[in-house]
Formats: sequence, C-alpha cells, structure tokens
Amino acid sequence: MKKVENKLKEKLNNKEFIAKSQCVIRLLMARLEIINMELSVNLKRDVIQSKTGRLKSYKSTCKKLNKKGLERSFSAAAENIHDLIGVRGVCSYVDDIYLVQKMLEEQQDINILKIKDYIKHPKESGYQSLHMILEVPLVFQGETQWIKAELQLRTAAMDYWANLDHQLRYKKEDSQGREAAIDQELKKCAEIVEYLDQTMLEIRKKIEKI
Amino acid sequence: MKKVENKLKEKLNNKEFIAKSQCVIRLLMARLEIINMELSVNLKRDVIQSKTGRLKSYKSTCKKLNKKGLERSFSAAAENIHDLIGVRGVCSYVDDIYLVQKMLEEQQDINILKIKDYIKHPKESGYQSLHMILEVPLVFQGETQWIKAELQLRTAAMDYWANLDHQLRYKKEDSQGREAAIDQELKKCAEIVEYLDQTMLEIRKKIEKI
Amino acid sequence: MKKVENKLKEKLNNKEFIAKSQCVIRLLMARLEIINMELSVNLKRDVIQSKTGRLKSYKSTCKKLNKKGLERSFSAAAENIHDLIGVRGVCSYVDDIYLVQKMLEEQQDINILKIKDYIKHPKESGYQSLHMILEVPLVFQGETQWIKAELQLRTAAMDYWANLDHQLRYKKEDSQGREAAIDQELKKCAEIVEYLDQTMLEIRKKIEKI
Amino acid sequence: MKKVENKLKEKLNNKEFIAKSQCVIRLLMARLEIINMELSVNLKRDVIQSKTGRLKSYKSTCKKLNKKGLERSFSAAAENIHDLIGVRGVCSYVDDIYLVQKMLEEQQDINILKIKDYIKHPKESGYQSLHMILEVPLVFQGETQWIKAELQLRTAAMDYWANLDHQLRYKKEDSQGREAAIDQELKKCAEIVEYLDQTMLEIRKKIEKI
Repeated sequence: MKKVENKLKEKLNNKEFIAKSQCVIRLLMARLEIINMELSVNLKRDVIQSKTGRLKSYKSTCKKLNKKGLERSFSAAAENIHDLIGVRGVCSYVDDIYLVQKMLEEQQDINILKIKDYIKHPKESGYQSLHMILEVPLVFQGETQWIKAELQLRTAAMDYWANLDHQLRYKKEDSQGREAAIDQELKKCAEIVEYLDQTMLEIRKKIEKI
Repeated sequence: MKKVENKLKEKLNNKEFIAKSQCVIRLLMARLEIINMELSVNLKRDVIQSKTGRLKSYKSTCKKLNKKGLERSFSAAAENIHDLIGVRGVCSYVDDIYLVQKMLEEQQDINILKIKDYIKHPKESGYQSLHMILEVPLVFQGETQWIKAELQLRTAAMDYWANLDHQLRYKKEDSQGREAAIDQELKKCAEIVEYLDQTMLEIRKKIEKI
Repeated sequence: MKKVENKLKEKLNNKEFIAKSQCVIRLLMARLEIINMELSVNLKRDVIQSKTGRLKSYKSTCKKLNKKGLERSFSAAAENIHDLIGVRGVCSYVDDIYLVQKMLEEQQDINILKIKDYIKHPKESGYQSLHMILEVPLVFQGETQWIKAELQLRTAAMDYWANLDHQLRYKKEDSQGREAAIDQELKKCAEIVEYLDQTMLEIRKKIEKI
Repeated sequence: MKKVENKLKEKLNNKEFIAKSQCVIRLLMARLEIINMELSVNLKRDVIQSKTGRLKSYKSTCKKLNKKGLERSFSAAAENIHDLIGVRGVCSYVDDIYLVQKMLEEQQDINILKIKDYIKHPKESGYQSLHMILEVPLVFQGETQWIKAELQLRTAAMDYWANLDHQLRYKKEDSQGREAAIDQELKKCAEIVEYLDQTMLEIRKKIEKI
C-alpha cells in the first residue's frame, strides 16, 4: 500500500508529467485568450476577465482519492480525478459563460467529454460554476497524446463565493461541528450571488438595447 | 481657446510626461504588491486580488474639465483633475480596503492629500470605492518631484458594479432619457453588492474564529 | 492611387484584422513555449530564451511595398509581405534554432511555406537569422482560416547585432553617404558574432561530453 | 553543528524572510524599470533589456559558506554572503551599465555598500559583470529595515558567456580534471565577448554622430 502511494507521489512529481501538464495549461489558456479576442471584436468588452491554471497537488489528490474510496495509485488518480490539470476562467456575466462553452464546442481539436452545469444546478453547498472535462491533443516527443483537463467557468461573483467557501473547508479540518451554521450562511450568500448575477445581466441587456 | 486646447493635448502626449506618469504607476503598483506580500504573511491569503494602472486619455480629460466648467488647459487639468494618473486595487473583502489604507498612511514617502470614502458614503448613483489622492516622490533627471495620483480601492463586487455602470454611462451619450429606469435598477444592484460584501465579510470573520 | 493607400491603412487598422493577427501571434507564442518545455525535459535548460510578436505598422508596410516597387494596396501587401504578422524567438545556441525548426516541421497543424536560412547564408549586410514563413489555422467566427506569419529564430548574439543594425537603418534616412564605412564595420561585427556563436556552441558540446 | 545547519535551512525558508526578500526584489526591479523609462526619454531606446530576481537556495548558500570556510549558520550567511537576494539587469551596451550605476548612486533611498567592477577587471575565469552591493529600506510591519542585496549588471554578450560558464561549473562536480582545457577555451571566449561589446559600442557611437 505504502509503495503504491510513493509511486503516486513520484509520478505526480515526474518532470515529464509536469512539463506535459504545463503544456496543456498553456494550450488551454491560449485558447481562452483567442476566444476572448474573437468575442471582443463584436461585443466591445472582455468576456473573460482573468484566467488561472494549476496542477493538483499530491496532498489534494490523496484527499480526493480518499473521499472517493479509491486507492492512492497513479492509475486510480488518472482515471477518476478529472482535474489533475485544471484551468479556470472568470467571466463578466452569466451568459458569457455559455458563449465561451459554445465556442469551445466548435473547436475541432478539443474533445468535450463531460459538462457539469453547477450554475443551472448548484451543488448542495450553494457552489456555482460550469465544469467542462476536456481532452486536448498534445504533440510531445513526436507523438500526439490526448490529455484530459478540467475547465471551470464562473462569474466574478461566483468566484468570490468559491474562495470564501474554500477558506472554510480548509479550516474545517481543524474544527468540529461548529461550522454547520456557517454552511447555512454560505448557502444564503450563494443565493445573493445568484440574484446579483441575474440582476446585473438583466441590466446589461437593457443597456445594450438603448 | 483652440490654441490652449491643442497645448493640453500636446502636453498630455508629451513623451517625458508619459514616462514620468508611467513611473508613478509602476511605483504605486510595486507598493501595493509589497503591502500585499506583507499582509499575506499573517493573513495567509491575498488581500489585493488584482491591480491596474492607466493615464487619463485626452478625450476623457476634456470631458471632465467640461463637467467642472473649466477651460481646456494643462494647468487647469493638473490642478483640478486628481486622477490624470490612476491606479486601482481590487481587494477581496471590505475590511481589507481599510487595512491597505492604513498601511499606505504609515509609508513615510507617500503623502496622502485627501480621502474620499464612497464606501461609507456611496455616490448618488450607488457607486462605491475608496479614493485616495496621493503624492509620491519621483527622482527623475536628477530632481525629486512630488507627483499626484489617485488610488482607487474596491472589492471585486464593487468593481463588477462599476464596470457595468461605466458601460451604461458610455451608452448614455448616444441616447436620451430612456435610461432613468436603468439608473434606478443599477442603484438597487449597488445595494445588493453592499449586502453581499457585508455578508461575505461576516462569514469570513466567523470562519476565522473557528 | 491615394484612395487605394487609404484603404491599406484602414484595413491594417481594422479591428477584426488586428484581433485575428493578435490571435495568430498568441498561437505561435504558445507553440514556442510548448516546444521549449518539451525540449527542456531532456536538455535541462531553456532553448528559447525570450520571444516577442508584433504587427507590421502601416508606415513600415508602405516602406517595404515601395522597396519592392509595388502599389500601396492591401492585396499587394497581403500577397507579397510575409511578415505583416511576425514572431521572433531568441535561442541560446545556434543548434537550438534548428532543433526548434525541426519541431515546428513535425507539427501537423502548421504549414511551412518557405524557409530562408540567413545563418548558413548571411545577407550582404551580415544579417543572420532563420526565417520561416508559416501558415497556421485560426478558427474565427466559426470558420477555419489559414493565416500567414513569419517566424524569425536567432541567437542572442545575432539579436544584439540586428538591433544595432536596425538603429543604423533608422538613422540612415536622415543622413547621406557617410554610413558606408559603418556598414563595413557592422559587417565585420557580424563576423565576430558568428565566431562567438560557433565557439560557444563548441564549448557547450565539450561540456556536455564531460 | 547539525543543529546550526538546520536552523540555517529553517531561516532561509521562513515565510517572513521570503516575503521580505521578495519585496526587496520587487523594489529593485521597479527601480530598474523607472531608470530605464527615464533614460529612454532621451536615448529613444531601452537601456535595460531584461531583468530577473532570485533568492539564493539553501544548497547554493551552503556551497558558498563552505568555499569561504564559514560555518553553516544564518548569521554567517547574512553577514558574509551578499547575494542572498540577487537582482540581475541585462543592458544593451557596456556604457549603459555605467549609466545605470550612476543613476542608482543618485537615488537617495539606496545605500551603495560596495562596487565590484568585473568589467574593468574580469575574474581569472574571464567572468565580466558589474556587481553592486546595495541596501534598500523596507517598511515591513511598521518598522523600516535596511536590507542588503546584490545587483548584477552585464551586457547580453556577457550574460551569454556567464550562462555557459555556469553550466560548466554545474557539470564540474561530477567530473575530474578534464575540464581544464575547457576553462581555457571559455576564457578565450570571454575575450571575444569583450571584443564584440567594444566593437558594438564604437559602432553605436558612430551611428549616433551621423
């Protein structure tokens, strides 16, 4: 058991694995920039405000494997954890998210494996975002490999909420129970976020009609 | 009249003026980065999410002079328009804004000329932000000059609102009257933003106490 | 004639043309980053030190059309000037340039139209660089278009020389004749650059064999 | 002994030490940018082509302490190793280096502790660069501290050479003796670099006089 775990750590820290994963992040970031540039020609504003990419850490990978009741092996991680490579785009308005999704679906060299729409169907916690599990082709050392990554699209307000929620989850590990009330408040807050995003979008549409 | 105006344009586009102003922007951005790094040691999170800087365009300077009933001369602009050089910092939470303000007040080589707190006292439109009119020393061509700039601090939610409001103001020039109703809705939206920021801050404080 | 020229200016400054061209630059920069990451896994050093991209200015486009005896129209420019979109990569060693070329040739979604090897065959002036005229596919507004761009690869020493040479050419327009002697010295300097690059490469190869 | 060493590692990895050091790097980088902007107004070209900053790693700190015959303690490192915090600026021409030095000497809030001119007096190996040991004031947690850092200024050609030399030194540890001949060739190469820099500078001066 211990040996498998060490192999997981070793493989996640393998130089070639990291280099490939960074390449996938760069490719997806470049794709988002191009989509943004293209949309901005007509819309005369940025659709994607900011974007980040990251590799999932060994620690965080183990936590997720535990939660799913899987063994700590690289193959278990590669098959079951879709966000080992993750890219996040923060959009200005809710409808921008679906515009970006549509543009990604039109790209011939991106396979979309799965879409989880936590905007139309927020998580129990109140979490909202659009998750796309993608595959992109990477030419590396002469061969083309299709590599999986998760792209998260959300508004600035959803991102605001998610950062606060993440901070709570991090704290939870040191505490017991007292945070049930906070969970409740965060959920209420997620509803304010949703209401804000909807109201802002409606106003923008009215402004555009002037 | 026309001649004075041309001189304004010329002076705003003067290479040395632009170089100096860019230096002031760089200095202030570096200062914000340092404040962020310092605060993050104890708080274990970023206090300043993002920052931008810009020089006010000739067109936008003229508009502001008109609104204030001033002539289009460089001296009128330099004396009365405080944001010819502008830097904006977007903070995560409302109290972070006042933390950053306090740290700036402790810096010995920054003069704070004026503070306009549009968070405690939002503008009629609903606009919220903390504006600080500062002076920073710039050693340029052997001499030290104190140069004025405006620093705007706001939360991500306030920034979201301000971008939408700016888009409306831009449109307004082409339209007539129909936007009074939109103004009303934007104001309501500013209240949601305020409510969201307060709720998020309260939750964060509760999380920190766990 | 004047009308055609105005159209050239207008088309080069057209927002969609600029957005598309910027997309091509982003794509090529991302491609160079990926190639660099891939090569660095085995070589344990950066092969591409730095890279830049630019659109050719209207002024500089006109100059080149003049020199070629062509009319100042957009179609003349698009057909005959290959570096309207230009990307430059600065490599550490001469052999790195050919490594990058080889990797680009293996990419299936890049067409290489022409290669001009000014390293093996320097220009009369002494200028050295590898120029590749490429076509890359851009999905824009639903359609795939193949867009032409020039990629210049050179060592840091060649880049050093080219910057100095460019400065001279810029000055030349204001002067007459006196610079023939300088041309001669620049050419001598280009030979020192070549000698330096060769010597550095030989030493690196010896170091690698240790 | 082991305990002192562990303390060195711990202190070099201390979050506050790292944050402060990063602040010093940011401050010096901002200062170089400002100097470059100021000089570019008159010279109409960039004087500082690129710049980087880094903290010295624990491993590299130990190596240097060993070489100097000092114990592996933080106080020994802080007093005797001047480049725990290091910033490097790459200039276009040799005379630009001295221009930047002069501008730094005129800054009232930078103390220059020592200047080592390895351009006028290259190291035995052939190494060329201008090293300035500086102290800059950092306001951190309410107090002003003067923190030491090393600024290295060199031309692109010197940087080219130094990178190759560094690669050799790195290899040397795994080899024995065979590299004496390479040392000799590197030294010869350093002379070509010097000759190139001088020739380029002379040509630039002639071009400026046209």
